[in-house]
Amino acid sequence: MTAYTATVTVRLKGGVLDPEAETTRGALERLGFELDSLRSADVFEIDLDAESSADAEERAGEMAERLLANPTIHDYTVAVEER
Amino acid sequence: MTAYTATVTVRLKGGVLDPEAETTRGALERLGFELDSLRSADVFEIDLDAESSADAEERAGEMAERLLANPTIHDYTVAVEER
Repeated sequence: MTAYTATVTVRLKGGVLDPEAETTRGALERLGFELDSLRSADVFEIDLDAESSADAEERAGEMAERLLANPTIHDYTVAVEER
Repeated sequence: MTAYTATVTVRLKGGVLDPEAETTRGALERLGFELDSLRSADVFEIDLDAESSADAEERAGEMAERLLANPTIHDYTVAVEER
């Protein structure tokens, strides 16, 4: 078994409204910052032991499917590295 | 001016309790997943126009200092790429 860190990034799908990001963008603009757009995402860094990098990636993907992401509104990506 | 995307990742500092992450970890374990630990982070992807990559990074860092991160409890990193 090898120790891996799997990073699961959960983003809203295109077209899904993100009022929190809009609020943050407005607050930055009121502070005088210029920006074109702002998107927010949630990241989960998961330390786990697995037989291989592919195994770690598959298990982290299952965690995203079952709990971390809502497939109706979210897309997710998984990146794995040894720790 | 060049179009950049600055990615600001905001993490809790080491030693700061993260009850949301603990709840997520417990829920994953109840679903039968095995993991050693789980950390959560917030990511802001900011599209902005800047003179240079260094300029974009500096402005995104200021946004983190002023609004996106709370320096008492958060660390942040900034990554910039052309879009």
